[in-house]
Order: sequence, then structure tokens, then C-alpha cells
Amino acid sequence: DGGSYDAVHDASSPAAGDCCAQQSSAQHDWEMNYQEAAIYLQEGENNDKFFTHPKNAKALAAYLFAHNHLFYLMELSTALLLLLLSLCEAPAVPMLRLGIYVHATLELFALIVVVFELSMKMRWLGFHTFIRHKRTMVKTCVLFVQFIEAIVVLVRQTSHVRITRALRCIFLVDCRYCGAVRRNLRQIFQSLPPFIDILLLLLFFMVIFAILGFYLFSPNHSDPYFSTLENSLVNLFVLLTTSNFPDVMMPSYARNPWSCVFFIVYLSIELYFIMNLLLAVVFDTFNDIEKKKFKSLLLHKRAAIQHAYRLLITKQRPTGVSFKHFEGLLRFYKPRMCARERYLTFKALNQSNTPLVSLKDFYNFYEVVGLKWKAKRNREHWFDDLPRTAFLIFKGNSFCYGFFLYFPDTVVAVNGIWILVETFMLQGGNFFSRNVPWSYIVFLTIYGVELLLKTTGLGPVEYLSSGWNLFDFAVTLFAFLGLLALAFNMEPFYFIVVLRPLQLLRLFKLKKRYRNVLDTMFELFPRMASLGLTLLIFYYCFAIVGMEFFAGVVYPNCCNTSTVADSYRWVNHTVGNKTVVEEGYYYLNNFDNILNSFVTLFELTVVNDWYIIMEGVTSQTTHWSRLYFMIFYIVTMVVMTIIVAFILEAFVFRMNYTRKNQDSEEDNGIMLEKEISKEEVIGIIELYKRSSAATETSQLQKIVLQMDKYGQMSTLFLGRRSRTKSDLSMKMYEEEIQEWYEEHARKEECQTPSQEPAPASNNSLKPLSLRQRSQTVI
Amino acid sequence: DGGSYDAVHDASSPAAGDCCAQQSSAQHDWEMNYQEAAIYLQEGENNDKFFTHPKNAKALAAYLFAHNHLFYLMELSTALLLLLLSLCEAPAVPMLRLGIYVHATLELFALIVVVFELSMKMRWLGFHTFIRHKRTMVKTCVLFVQFIEAIVVLVRQTSHVRITRALRCIFLVDCRYCGAVRRNLRQIFQSLPPFIDILLLLLFFMVIFAILGFYLFSPNHSDPYFSTLENSLVNLFVLLTTSNFPDVMMPSYARNPWSCVFFIVYLSIELYFIMNLLLAVVFDTFNDIEKKKFKSLLLHKRAAIQHAYRLLITKQRPTGVSFKHFEGLLRFYKPRMCARERYLTFKALNQSNTPLVSLKDFYNFYEVVGLKWKAKRNREHWFDDLPRTAFLIFKGNSFCYGFFLYFPDTVVAVNGIWILVETFMLQGGNFFSRNVPWSYIVFLTIYGVELLLKTTGLGPVEYLSSGWNLFDFAVTLFAFLGLLALAFNMEPFYFIVVLRPLQLLRLFKLKKRYRNVLDTMFELFPRMASLGLTLLIFYYCFAIVGMEFFAGVVYPNCCNTSTVADSYRWVNHTVGNKTVVEEGYYYLNNFDNILNSFVTLFELTVVNDWYIIMEGVTSQTTHWSRLYFMIFYIVTMVVMTIIVAFILEAFVFRMNYTRKNQDSEEDNGIMLEKEISKEEVIGIIELYKRSSAATETSQLQKIVLQMDKYGQMSTLFLGRRSRTKSDLSMKMYEEEIQEWYEEHARKEECQTPSQEPAPASNNSLKPLSLRQRSQTVI
Repeated sequence: DGGSYDAVHDASSPAAGDCCAQQSSAQHDWEMNYQEAAIYLQEGENNDKFFTHPKNAKALAAYLFAHNHLFYLMELSTALLLLLLSLCEAPAVPMLRLGIYVHATLELFALIVVVFELSMKMRWLGFHTFIRHKRTMVKTCVLFVQFIEAIVVLVRQTSHVRITRALRCIFLVDCRYCGAVRRNLRQIFQSLPPFIDILLLLLFFMVIFAILGFYLFSPNHSDPYFSTLENSLVNLFVLLTTSNFPDVMMPSYARNPWSCVFFIVYLSIELYFIMNLLLAVVFDTFNDIEKKKFKSLLLHKRAAIQHAYRLLITKQRPTGVSFKHFEGLLRFYKPRMCARERYLTFKALNQSNTPLVSLKDFYNFYEVVGLKWKAKRNREHWFDDLPRTAFLIFKGNSFCYGFFLYFPDTVVAVNGIWILVETFMLQGGNFFSRNVPWSYIVFLTIYGVELLLKTTGLGPVEYLSSGWNLFDFAVTLFAFLGLLALAFNMEPFYFIVVLRPLQLLRLFKLKKRYRNVLDTMFELFPRMASLGLTLLIFYYCFAIVGMEFFAGVVYPNCCNTSTVADSYRWVNHTVGNKTVVEEGYYYLNNFDNILNSFVTLFELTVVNDWYIIMEGVTSQTTHWSRLYFMIFYIVTMVVMTIIVAFILEAFVFRMNYTRKNQDSEEDNGIMLEKEISKEEVIGIIELYKRSSAATETSQLQKIVLQMDKYGQMSTLFLGRRSRTKSDLSMKMYEEEIQEWYEEHARKEECQTPSQEPAPASNNSLKPLSLRQRSQTVI
Repeated sequence: DGGSYDAVHDASSPAAGDCCAQQSSAQHDWEMNYQEAAIYLQEGENNDKFFTHPKNAKALAAYLFAHNHLFYLMELSTALLLLLLSLCEAPAVPMLRLGIYVHATLELFALIVVVFELSMKMRWLGFHTFIRHKRTMVKTCVLFVQFIEAIVVLVRQTSHVRITRALRCIFLVDCRYCGAVRRNLRQIFQSLPPFIDILLLLLFFMVIFAILGFYLFSPNHSDPYFSTLENSLVNLFVLLTTSNFPDVMMPSYARNPWSCVFFIVYLSIELYFIMNLLLAVVFDTFNDIEKKKFKSLLLHKRAAIQHAYRLLITKQRPTGVSFKHFEGLLRFYKPRMCARERYLTFKALNQSNTPLVSLKDFYNFYEVVGLKWKAKRNREHWFDDLPRTAFLIFKGNSFCYGFFLYFPDTVVAVNGIWILVETFMLQGGNFFSRNVPWSYIVFLTIYGVELLLKTTGLGPVEYLSSGWNLFDFAVTLFAFLGLLALAFNMEPFYFIVVLRPLQLLRLFKLKKRYRNVLDTMFELFPRMASLGLTLLIFYYCFAIVGMEFFAGVVYPNCCNTSTVADSYRWVNHTVGNKTVVEEGYYYLNNFDNILNSFVTLFELTVVNDWYIIMEGVTSQTTHWSRLYFMIFYIVTMVVMTIIVAFILEAFVFRMNYTRKNQDSEEDNGIMLEKEISKEEVIGIIELYKRSSAATETSQLQKIVLQMDKYGQMSTLFLGRRSRTKSDLSMKMYEEEIQEWYEEHARKEECQTPSQEPAPASNNSLKPLSLRQRSQTVI
């Protein structure tokens, strides 16, 4: 490890030197070091490349300005404003339509904010690095185009065909908060080459079958599907999605039953074999990329830790970081952490008995810093501190709670069946009768009592810390609100009553597999959300393009000349004395505004009957419109395949993990116990007193008082955090990780052989830039 | 290993004793041993449990009678006859209709053959084992029911509702040749428990959403999809298959655009999350089962080898099997193997330099016995043996062949584009003009010349040994036949011309990934075929049930009262002076005979618009018919999910394997080289002469003559076989396999500790039953 560390330290020491060369005061010097180390650790965490690290004091100021939640929020809101503008522009949502003058001005304003953001970034990165940073350069170009277009719109006072609006997404993608989306996009693009290979195979077979189909079925004049080669191709493409399935076969099947063989063979090869092959290839590539990504992130974090470590050690004590410096680092890295937690983090890292944290221990920084510390109570119940009478009551409740463990689930099951039967009995009409059904009140009472018992039994804090209890609470609250709505006849709130069946979800606690599934679901949720957002970004691009080309082309009875005329029909005719409305409804699937476009695109994603939408639009425009729909199908196929691959990978991974660790008890996240003695606390108080940090001192003194009260000489603290994907991966690749480290160390050794002889490197751990600093140690 | 061996030998020695106690002559004794060892090895290969091993001479005779291809073929043809009878029974295919008397007699005949087969099996297994064997017992029960029903039909002269015909499949499943189908079915049933768990989750959410949907949308009277709770449930089930997607949303969407949220949330949860979860769970279970299956098969094979080994060693030489005994074994195990191959197999197994094969070497039996041995030629070209003049011509060709390596692919590509353009130019009409297009002749000539060059360059045998060349050959032949058909105007053969585009498939040789995909496809083909057959068996069951209940219920204009009336319409009306036929065609998707049922079921499998078929049938029968369709959907979902999981698993496995062995050269299957010296061959000849095997002797003498001709003292032989899934698995689980062996050995040691002290076991390798035999060694 010594070798790898040195290589890093040599490579980056000029940066540290530059940053701090102008400083004079020793304390200020150290503050700068703390800050830079914190920045390194943040870069490691966020996977920011080190070449964007601020190189001097001016850059640091810009960096700090551009790296806080206020700035991030500004970035995000500007991007969202730009995206939301399409609600109000030309084919606008009727209620939100704005004058051209208004929305163009808004757009210009938002773009100017983006210019400001970019200039801050330039200040921080320096012109040279700015140019090298690809994403930023693309953003700049798009910004330029958008700017010109916005001005053109403002001058002409009319919107032209602005397909470039689709590029607005890049402002959102570039946001700090959308890092996950960026990663997804990168992963999608990396999965593309093998995907495209198999896609070509798919299209190739399609062409062969299109030619065959044309030869076989075009002599049949009652078969419109294969009349020309183009029709043949389009219909086989649609058949690939199964969307026109039995219909496309029917005319030829009616003529000759054996023609079904053609379709069965086509579907077996294309749909059941090659499409699954596509999934397999994407799944495999995805897994591979996932592992590589994990590896590079792990090594990047390690490098960041090395950089930070180098900035925190002193000349006198080159073998570790003292608490004083560690505390300084945390002040910048996690300003909200209290003094007690800082010391506990330090103790958790420090596995030797020396007062210094060595580099090897420091490598665990990211795993330990996320822990939430809590004093381990000696009391059994939360109400042990309350007066005697109350204590007895709660104690009794707590006993009842254990007794009623399975009762609530039975009630929920009964309630579920009740609701089902009740609903089955209702046959149309107004369900919300004035008198509240008695069953509603009975069940609600039971839930209310259960809630009360549980809260008193477990204590309000612990009760609400469980997701399931929170869910119970929310559902019961909703049911209560629904009851109020019914009782006081508040019609707009009736929808709450409708949510009653959601209570049945509580039954899923009962079985372990479902609990696992739901837990995994919650673990995956952030990632799923980012994948959903990625899909929405693709939707946005296609929605803009669709609106520019197809807005207003579809309306009732528009497509009477096409084969899908029925679906677009709207006839209002009178039979006898009754008015009969025949509605095809498909004219509702249009691109008239961005919300409609999104719904239409979702329908295209679901694929069923998508060709009706395609043919409707095609009959009103040109043949080339089909390209739009086909490309959209392929793009969503890519994204959906990746989503499937992701879900597959995540669950299979999780199940493998569970199988590997079957013998270990049910996991409640990562836990760590640390004991702190009174002397230690007093020592830290002394330290803080010297640096005159009043709040920290008083906080720590409370702990001492607490210890005195219970007559303890030490307190046990429990650190806990939920398990992340990274923890799981760590465990899965346990053996390989060591190899990666060694390989990485070897590689870096090879890159810097001329500067220092490798064996001697252990003795000169200190960076040059630190030599002129004064060394203060607690 | 000693321990594990002993355990096996102790457990099974009574069986060997029983089988051979009655024999007296030493040679006959040995022959019996060879045969029994061969039977053990076959049982190991076929994964037959050892408790069905023949226990005495009578059982052995029955075993031999029931274990040869003639008997297997009889089994298969009887089962097929029984299945095919449904083509001719009651709702028969019109052309194949048979009188009740005829088909009932045929059925009785087939059933009697099955009775005969079962009685043979009983003779071989003994009554006790027969009763214990579950599959055979089920078969017997089904046979009994079928018998009674066939007699009832024959007596009443009319078919009753015979749903039990669906059980006929069991006769096919029980066939020796359908082992793969049995394994698939077992795997499907093993994957069921987790599948059902997730399915319940799916159905649960469906019920919740059905109640919600009913409350939300039933007040809208123009929305037929949610008018009752039953409708709501059915339509959400159909929505799960996306089959009615935008339609089911449209009435409510037209009323309130925000109602789309209900459908989007439903589809996101059910279709995009839980359905994928289903795939993940099945994929995971499937992988797990696959590994366990491989492990148990591996251990079973090992046990079989131990049994066989125990029967082949002698008292004097307990440490290995001599060639004489090995040869005796192979005579029974692979009767078609020639003497040279037997000796080469022996040499390949024997890794020590002693004349005996030890148990450790013998464990490789299954890997080695499949090798095909070929003398390695010293000649460069196949025509080196031909006279001088011919040699020169072929030599030149061979040179040309190298030159033209990439030419043919270019021609194929050009031809492909040509066909595409040509087809695009054609616009309907009769394509088969009398004059053959010149392009056809040009391309065919080029292909012909290429074929000739390749054949002469590589030699006819080697040319046809490559799958791709065979494909080229077949396509060129077809094209030639098509030309003849065109030239001589033979209309029925025009279909051959239509197959021309298949030539384009040759382009897939060009890219490595495609070659890999296609190679994997061919490797997977047997397994895929067995999965397909499994699906067909499910189809058969459902087709029989469908025919019994729904035959004849669907006809043109049948369903005018249902919501899908349009699809079943058949109107023939006159507009002006033209007859316009409006066809809905869906009446063709019926259960009127078994072929139609199969097509209908395939359409249901593809899922798109399946609800039209369901609603059509339901409107003519009862609500409960929906259950049939829904159950069919769920069953095909299971099977299709498993097929997807299988394809995924196979490809991911293969890709992982390729990645792991990236550095090794392209694999051409398993290869092994062995050198045989002249002395060895002469030694074997002596051996065969002693046992007076004339054909073997003459065969071997040819090798000696060949050696003499070229003046060699030894010949190098090359053994080769294609790589199987088992080889890949062996390599993948390399590390774990050793653990399995050890664990297995430990387990067996624990089971038999009282019989013999473990450390001493190495000295008593010989089974008791061998003691009374005379020992002859070469």
C-alpha cells in the first residue's frame, strides 16, 4: 500500500501546494488543509474527477460558491423552469397558455441564469479544464443555440419549428442532483454496441421474412398487410411487437390454414428467441458495466482518501491523523455533525490503541462516517423514566401488545374480505350514501385502538421509526379523514374513502418473501426513480419532436381513408328516440400539448395497439412519420430492457447475497458499538475549550452529567446506518477487491518509478507542501 | 476418495451378488460382470436411480428387453399414435375423420401395447419397486381410466365428454426419448413455489386496483370496463397482458384526463415491476436448480463409475482395471466401437504408465468415451494420395480458394441488395414470369463455381463436415432446383424460388458475435426443442379441454351481443355493382379440431388481442369459460418465463465462460492426442486372437500395414468431440466440484461407519461377490 499511496501523493502534491502557498498563519494553513481534504473526500464520494479539483484560492472560492445546496437548487429550478416552459409554449396546455412575449422573456431569464452558472464553473475550473470537460462544452453549445432561438422568437413574435427545445433536457441532466440520471445515461450508451449488433440481427431476419411474406401473400388481394414490400416490412415490424398479431395473419389464414406456419416461425425466431437474446446481452453487459463501475468508484474513493490523508498528517507524526485534525476535517465535511459524533467516528475508525488513525484505518472513512450514533440505553422501556403510576399503565399495555401480536393481521384480513364482499354487493349508483356504514366505524375503531396500544407499547419515537408502522398510521389517518368526509358530507374528499382497500397492503408483512421483496423494492427505489427520470427525459425529447410535427393532425373522424378509421370515428346518430354516440376515442391520443404527448408516448411504450396511433398520424402526414414511431419503439425497448436488466440484476444479486449469508441473523443494516469513558470526554472538552467552541463544550458536558447521574464510568454508543448497494457489492466481491487494490497499487508504482525508489518510499510519507507548516498536535 | 468408494461398494455389493450368484463358468461370470458394469454406466449417464437396477438374471433379461432402441421406438410410436388419435376423434380434422369403431379399436390396440410395455417393466423392476416408482404408478392409473373409457366408447358407439384424453400426454412424457421433457417438467414444478408467491402478490394488487377502479369509474355509464366488480377484475387482468390497453383507459380518459394516472400507476406496478420480479425470481430459482441438478448428476455418475469399477477389478490386481476387462465392458456399453477405438479410449483414460486404469483415472470415463478417434494425417491436402496430374490441378484450386476467401461474401451481399431492390420494384401480380431473370442465373453460377472450388480445395469430406458449408450447399442446391422449376415451368415448386432470400443468412459468418450467437443457438437447440415439446404438451392438454367444451361455439356472426361483435362479423353486401365482404375473421380462431385449437392456443400465447377470443367464446357459453383462458395465460406465462430464464441463463453462462477464457484460442470442442506404437497394436492383436475375434483382428492388422507402408514406428491419433453444456459447467464450477466430492465422500463415510473401520478400507477394495470367481488378466 505504501507504494500506491506515494504515487498518489507525488502526483497531487503540487495541487495542494498551489492551493496553500500564499497562506501565512499556521492555523489558517491548517484550516485550508482541512477544507481541501474535505473537498477531496466529497469528490471521492460524488465520483468527480480530480482534474476538476480547485487549484488555487480563487478557484477554491468559486468552487465553494458552486458547491452548496443553494446553488444546486438554483441549477435545478432553472432547468425545471426551462423544461416546464413547454407547457406554456405554442401547442400549450389550454389552461397554462402564455403570450409569446411572456414565455420568451422567461426563457431568456432562465438562460441568463444558466450563463451565470456556467461562468461560475469556468472560474472554478479554469478555461483550460473547462474546455476539456465534454459535458460542460455540450451544455455551452446547447445554451448558445437556445439563446439565439429565444431571441429570434422574441423578435419575430412567433414560434418557429423549434426541435432544439428537445435539447433542454441537458440542463436538467447536468444538475448536481441528477448524478444518477447521468450514470444511467452513460450505462445505456455503454450497453448500446452489443445491443445494436443483436438489433441488426433482428432487423435482418425481418427483411428476409418481409421479402418471403411479400412473395407468399401479395397474390392474395384481400390481404392488405403484404400488398407491397413496404407494407410487408412495416407490418412485420409491428408484428415484432405482437401488436397486430392475429389480424395480420387472418386474411392469409382464411385462404390457406398452413400459412400460419410463416407467422409462427417468424414469431418464434424474432419474438421468443432474438428478443430474449437481446435481454440476455443487455443483462450481461449491464452486469459487467456495473461491476466495472463499482471497481472504479472504489478505487476513486480510495485515491480520494489518500489525498485527504496526505493533507492531514504532520511532519512529527507521519504515521497517522490526530483527533484534532480529524475534527477539523469533519467540520468542513459534515458541518452538522455534533462533537460527540465526531469523536465516535474517530474512535470507530481508529482500530489501533494509539491516538492516531493510520492510513489503513482511514480507508474505512466512507463506511464509518455515515453511521448515526445513539447512546445505548440501559432501560427496557421508553417510559421507565416516567413517574411510577404512568409506568404501571404503560407496562400493562406493553404486555397486551405482545398478546395482540397476530390479532391486527386477522382484522385486516377480515376487513379485506369485507370490503371485497361489500363492493361486490354494490351494483353501480352512488356509493357514498349519507349514513356511514357501521362496518367502517367498527374497523376504524379497531385500527385506532391498535395504533394507540402500539404507540404506548413501543414509545412514539420507536413506533414511527418503522416504515410499516408509519404506513399503518397513514392509512388509519386517511380512513379517519374519510370518515369525517362522509360524516360531514364533504364531497370533494370522497376520494379518501376510495383509498380504503390500500389497508390490505398490510397483509404483506406476514410472509418473509414479501417482506424481502418490499424491502428490496425500497432499497431499489432511488435507483428505480432515477431510471424513471431517465425515461421521462427521453419522453420529453420525443414529446417536443412529436409536438412540432404532429400537433393538431389527429381529430375525431380524421382518418377515414386509413385502415384504422374505426378507432378515430366519432358519430352521434339518433336511433329511434335515443342518441347513440359511437366513439373510437383514439383521437385523444394526440400530440396537441406536452401532457397529451406524454400520455400518448406512455401508450406507445406499453406497445399494445400502438400501430393504430402510428397509422392515424401517418394517414394525416407522410409515410416518414412511421420512422418517428419506430425509433421511439426501439429507444423505449432499449430503456425498458435496461430497466428489466436492472431489476433482474438487483434481485438476483440480493437473493444470492441472502443465500450466501443464510446463517447470519436478519440484517438490520450496518451496526457498530463503541464505548467512551468519562476521561476521554473530559479530554475532548479540554481540547474544545482551547479552541473556544462553546456549543460543542456544553454538548459534551451534558454527556458527563448524564454519566454522573447514573454513576457510570463509561457509556456505550451504538452506530447504525442502513445497508446500501455498495455494502452488498463489497461483500459479494470481497475476494476480488483485494486483487483490485493490489493491481491498482502495482499500476501506480509502474507509473512513478523514476521519482523515488519504491522500497524507500515508506519512510517519506509526508508531502513536500507540508514542510513549511507549523505542527500542532493535541 | 478411498472412503467414498468403499461406502458405495459396501452399499451395493449385495445387488451384484444376487445378479451373478447362479453363474458357474468363469468366462460367463466375467461376461455378466461386464454387462452389469455397462448397465451401471448407462444408468449413470441417463440419471436412472440405482434402486431400479436389475437384481437377478430374470430381471436382467427383462431389463435388456426393455432397454434397446426397438423397444424405445415402440414406446414412442404407441404414445404418438394415442396422441394423434385426437386428430380423428369426434371434433376431428375434416380430412382425417374416422368412424368411432375404427378409432376406438385403434386406441384399444395402442393401450394394449402400453399394457405389454408396463408388464415388461414390472418384470424387470419387481412388484415392490414397481409400486414405489411414482411415475409408473401414475401411468398405470391413467392407463386404467383410458382403457375403461375406450371400452365405454366402443360399447355406446358415441363419444362422451372425455377430458381425460388430456392425460394421454403422460404416455409420451414417460418415453425413454423424452427424458429432457421430464426434466423440464420437473424443473417447472420446482420453480413453482416462488413463482406462485409472486403471482399472489400480482393478483393481490389486481384486486386492490379492481376495487379502486370500480369505485372511481363505475359512475361513468359510458365506461363498460368497470361497470361491475367482475368486469373490473377481468379487465384489469387483461390489462396486465396490455391486451386492451389504451381502450380500457379511453372512456374515463375522455371524461377526465387525470384518470390516466390510475392506469399508469397500475401498469408501472404490475407490468413493469412485479412481472419483472417474477422473471427475476424464476431466473434465480432456475439457476439454483440447474446447479443442484448438475451437482446431483455429477455425483450420480461418479457413483455409477464406482459401481462399474468394483465389478471390473480382480482379486490379484485390486488397484485397477486391465484392458481385457475394459474391452469387455465397452463391448456391452458401446457395441459399435471398433477395436482401435476401444484401445485408444483405454489409453486416454490411463494416465499412469501401468497397464491398469486406477479408479481415479476411471472417473474420467464419461468425458473420454465420447471421443471420436482419427489418425492424424501427415499429408497437407486430401488429394496428396491421388495421381500426379490431378494433384497439380487441385493444388492450384486450393491456392485460388485462399485468394477468393472474401469474394463469396461480397457476392452474397450484392445478391442480397439485388433481391431487395428487385422485390421492391415488383408491385403485385404474378412474379413468376416465364423467362428466368438473368441475375438469377449469374448469381447461381457464381455460387456453383464457389461450391466447386471449395469442395476441391478442402476435399468433399472436410467440406461437408462444417455446418456453414452444408448450409451453403443446401441453399445453392435449392436455388438450382428453383431454377429448374422456373425453366420447366413446374408451378408446384415455385415455393423454392421464394426461399432465395435465405441465402442472405450466409452474411452472418462475417461477424464474430453473430457466429457466437449462432453457435450458442445450435448448442442450445436440443434443450430448446425439449422446452418447445414441453410447451406442446401443455398445448395438447388445453386443446383437448378446449375442444370438449368449446368445439363449434364460435362461427361467423356468432357474437353479436358481445362487445367484440365486430371481430366475428362476416357480412356480404352489395354496394353498387360490387360485392363487398366485411370479414372479422376471428371466427377462425376456434376449437373445432385439434389443429385449429393449436393455432388458437398459439394466438393466446402471443397474448395480443387474446381477450377478443376469450370474450367471443364467453358470450356463447358461460362466464366461467374465462377461467380456462386465464389459467391458460398463467400456465403459458410460467412456461414462457422459464424459457426466457433458460435462454438468459444459457447465454449469460456462455458469455461469462468466454470472458473467463478470453486468452485461450477459439475452442473447437474437446480434443485429445494419443500415440500408439506398433508393438502395442501387435500386443492387442495377440489378445484378440486368443479370444478369436476375427473382425477386430483384421481391423487392427490394417493399422499395422499402414504403419509399415509409411515406415512409422507409431501413429498419432486425435480424439475429438463437441463441447457440451456439462463440459462448460465443469469448468465454471471447477472449484466447487472438488468440495462436492469431498462433502459427498464424508457423507457416505458417516453412513457406513459400523461396517468397516475407515482407515483400513484401502486394503479391501474388492467386493465379496468377486471372491469365488477365477481371475484372468492379460
